Amino acid sequence: MAFKPLHDRVLVRRVEGDEKTKGGLIIPESAKEKPAEGEIIATGDGARKDSGELIDMAVKAGDRVLFGKWSGTEVTIDGEELLIMKESDILGVMA
Amino acid sequence: MAFKPLHDRVLVRRVEGDEKTKGGLIIPESAKEKPAEGEIIATGDGARKDSGELIDMAVKAGDRVLFGKWSGTEVTIDGEELLIMKESDILGVMA
Amino acid sequence: MAFKPLHDRVLVRRVEGDEKTKGGLIIPESAKEKPAEGEIIATGDGARKDSGELIDMAVKAGDRVLFGKWSGTEVTIDGEELLIMKESDILGVMA
Amino acid sequence: MAFKPLHDRVLVRRVEGDEKTKGGLIIPESAKEKPAEGEIIATGDGARKDSGELIDMAVKAGDRVLFGKWSGTEVTIDGEELLIMKESDILGVMA
Amino acid sequence: MAFKPLHDRVLVRRVEGDEKTKGGLIIPESAKEKPAEGEIIATGDGARKDSGELIDMAVKAGDRVLFGKWSGTEVTIDGEELLIMKESDILGVMA
Amino acid sequence: MAFKPLHDRVLVRRVEGDEKTKGGLIIPESAKEKPAEGEIIATGDGARKDSGELIDMAVKAGDRVLFGKWSGTEVTIDGEELLIMKESDILGVMA
Amino acid sequence: MAFKPLHDRVLVRRVEGDEKTKGGLIIPESAKEKPAEGEIIATGDGARKDSGELIDMAVKAGDRVLFGKWSGTEVTIDGEELLIMKESDILGVMA
Repeated sequence: MAFKPLHDRVLVRRVEGDEKTKGGLIIPESAKEKPAEGEIIATGDGARKDSGELIDMAVKAGDRVLFGKWSGTEVTIDGEELLIMKESDILGVMA
Repeated sequence: MAFKPLHDRVLVRRVEGDEKTKGGLIIPESAKEKPAEGEIIATGDGARKDSGELIDMAVKAGDRVLFGKWSGTEVTIDGEELLIMKESDILGVMA
Repeated sequence: MAFKPLHDRVLVRRVEGDEKTKGGLIIPESAKEKPAEGEIIATGDGARKDSGELIDMAVKAGDRVLFGKWSGTEVTIDGEELLIMKESDILGVMA
Repeated sequence: MAFKPLHDRVLVRRVEGDEKTKGGLIIPESAKEKPAEGEIIATGDGARKDSGELIDMAVKAGDRVLFGKWSGTEVTIDGEELLIMKESDILGVMA
Repeated sequence: MAFKPLHDRVLVRRVEGDEKTKGGLIIPESAKEKPAEGEIIATGDGARKDSGELIDMAVKAGDRVLFGKWSGTEVTIDGEELLIMKESDILGVMA
Repeated sequence: MAFKPLHDRVLVRRVEGDEKTKGGLIIPESAKEKPAEGEIIATGDGARKDSGELIDMAVKAGDRVLFGKWSGTEVTIDGEELLIMKESDILGVMA
Repeated sequence: MAFKPLHDRVLVRRVEGDEKTKGGLIIPESAKEKPAEGEIIATGDGARKDSGELIDMAVKAGDRVLFGKWSGTEVTIDGEELLIMKESDILGVMA
């Protein structure tokens, strides 16, 4: 089953770095949480300008990204736990 | 009786996945609630740009969608429980 | 006496479905209140775009509408209890 | 002494319907306060669009209006108690 | 020493009506504070539209104005207590 | 070492009037704090209009200004305590 | 591994001045925290105007900057602790 995010949303699969902290102990090294790592699975068509035109998405399926640890909404698609978030929750792309 | 949502609102019928959690036990697997699943029954004509033109809706009647579990306002139309919400509450479309 | 709502406001007469819950018991079936039903009595000329032009109202006198139960301000005109609310408080039109 | 409200403000004289509730008992028939009635004494030249042009006022001196009971700032001009409020606090015009 | 307010700010000297309530008793006749009276001493060049153009000030030095009693920031210029406030804090001009 | 504020920020050196209240007693004459006095040391290039063009700064290096006592962020540059604030925190220019 | 911040975000490496306060005692000289010093490692392509065009970044890789002590999100890239923040969190550039 495919899933098409609406507007400027993206569908993200978390990747391992983050998974370890889930089953392990939470050892806060600093007051600030590190962002999580993930892979873009699908993207919307983009938000709209005031003029109504679409703004191209800055990420695409396959991009490896960092995002705020608590960003997005969890969703189960075909039995897999994924996240839907806004492109603005994406901090940057690893290359 | 037909119902025409105004502006960028949509009329949604929840589908089963969600219904089960209603009568059953609430077992929070994680801190974050999963979104609910539904079907679009009717849509408004769209919001307006600053210039006053309509922005086409990104969903249409018949679309299978995910939306935030607590989104929308419940309404009973012809004895059926439906939800009215804004298109921006729709997370994405399943295809 | 006639009453002309200003800007994007509408004058609404509640209809019966809602009246019954007023004198009866309040039995909350769910956490979410159902919207109320009403009839549009009069409308303003519409809000203005940034450019200053009027945006036509999406409802007109005579329309049967749903609106949030707590929307609007009560007003007595010619001895009748009516509601003044913004068009954006109207969820949709029944047809 | 004349008083010229600035921008989209209006100068309003309350009318009797409201005065009675002032000296009498406050008997809340419902949770919602009814709006007050008044007469427009003077208006500003209007707010400005983003483009800087004036937007004509929708009310004029002499109009009989309804406004939220707690709207506006009381002011004494030539010994008379009046109210200064924004046009957006005016709910509608009686005709 | 001259003082030039920036943007849409004005420099205001309070006038007597208000001074009396300062040294005297505070007798709240009503829940709502009356506005204070003052004279415009100097004005800025005006706020800017989105397009970057200046919007002319609606008041000028010498104007007698009403303003919210608690509006503005007190400032001492050449030993005199004055107020700096935004033009939008001015309710209207007496003429 | 030079310091170039970004956008519509300015670098300000407090001047004496204010310094005295720092080491001395705080005697609140009135409920409202007086603004502080300072000299502009450097300015940014200005904020941007919606259209992306720069808006010229209304103050320049050397201007003697008043600003809200608690405005800005303290910064030590070449051993000197200065303040970085937004131009909108500047109340006016003394001339 | 390279990291490309999205939109108007920048990747910043803190520099020494700040590091000392981390392992040492926190001696608050004043109620206001001083900003931290850092070096820009990478920048996004810029935010977008309403019209959808990019706004050039005002900082570039290599710039020495000041930023609010608590600005940004910590991220570990290739074992190094860096910060991702918005350009608007940058107070100014040292030259």
